[in-house]
Amino acid sequence: MASQEIETLAQVLARLPGLGPRSARRAVLWLIKRRDTSLGQLRDALEVLQDRLVECTTCGNVDTTNPCAICADPRRDARSICVVEDVADLWALDRARLFTGRYHVLGGRLSALDGVRPEDLSIAPLIDRVGAGGIDEVVLAMNATLEGQTTAHYIAERLEGMPVRVTQLAHGLPVGGELDYLDEGTLAQALRARRPVS
Amino acid sequence: MASQEIETLAQVLARLPGLGPRSARRAVLWLIKRRDTSLGQLRDALEVLQDRLVECTTCGNVDTTNPCAICADPRRDARSICVVEDVADLWALDRARLFTGRYHVLGGRLSALDGVRPEDLSIAPLIDRVGAGGIDEVVLAMNATLEGQTTAHYIAERLEGMPVRVTQLAHGLPVGGELDYLDEGTLAQALRARRPVS
Repeated sequence: MASQEIETLAQVLARLPGLGPRSARRAVLWLIKRRDTSLGQLRDALEVLQDRLVECTTCGNVDTTNPCAICADPRRDARSICVVEDVADLWALDRARLFTGRYHVLGGRLSALDGVRPEDLSIAPLIDRVGAGGIDEVVLAMNATLEGQTTAHYIAERLEGMPVRVTQLAHGLPVGGELDYLDEGTLAQALRARRPVS
Repeated sequence: MASQEIETLAQVLARLPGLGPRSARRAVLWLIKRRDTSLGQLRDALEVLQDRLVECTTCGNVDTTNPCAICADPRRDARSICVVEDVADLWALDRARLFTGRYHVLGGRLSALDGVRPEDLSIAPLIDRVGAGGIDEVVLAMNATLEGQTTAHYIAERLEGMPVRVTQLAHGLPVGGELDYLDEGTLAQALRARRPVS
């Protein structure tokens, strides 16, 4: 039997997404074998994060500074805001390095099923940001799910009449997508949004 | 872009077996969302382990005490030693709760390919343990691989002439194994080691 302390670490690790009880145990052993190097590195990395993580009061991103590095970056276009559901989406978009503006994290999506209402999300602060002026475009980058699109429509409605261009991510064939493997919804979207060959 | 501190944690986590860069990033986000609960728990569990882990000087198990809980347990049969390649194997066997003796961890297996020689493993200490007397049986519980079996044969040879019974784990059909899915090696072992129906 492994000692109680080892079991505790295995149980905590097993809760991480992507790790089950068995792989958590393997990870613990791996860490134990490297208790002079990797175990300390992991502990230090967690300590730094725990001590320094803050939520950006402007956009809702999680960073070690407030405002976050993106909001504080003068090279970023302050006139363009990309609205995402979650911090994970912000990171995914930002890794693509195509969007040069700033972000706004809603903290979820509207869901009647889960009881998530507009006041549960960071929608009012978004309206305030746009209302404060200096914004040209709001890009709605919700997930292409029913709830994501409901959220996008709701926000678009709330922004109506404000002097700002509201856009959303294009829907269509994913890169590498083969027609006969794609669902009908995607095909319908791709056909509806067809564009002249340039 | 996630901050440097967040990237560091993701990189450390990505080195864990079972986690790749993408799942490590998901795990980091999961931890960040739970920075008031799980992140601290993981940090504490690592801290406790890092401070307290020791290798048992008797058997090579890793525990928070030396001798380890197994070697120190008076209910365990001190006359029987089960020899395993790795601490992971010790844990796997001990979870099955069938073996009531003590263990000896070799720290690997002989491998000409990887340049692992007898003196790189904890073989001499095993011979010393047996030589000190009071041992009735040595169970060789190496993996059923070529290198594991080579190691088992080598140790059996070294123990020859000592007043101890040397046994090894049975090879054969795994529980639930269907004949037409099993490899020829396993089938040959199972046939060769066939026993009278009891």
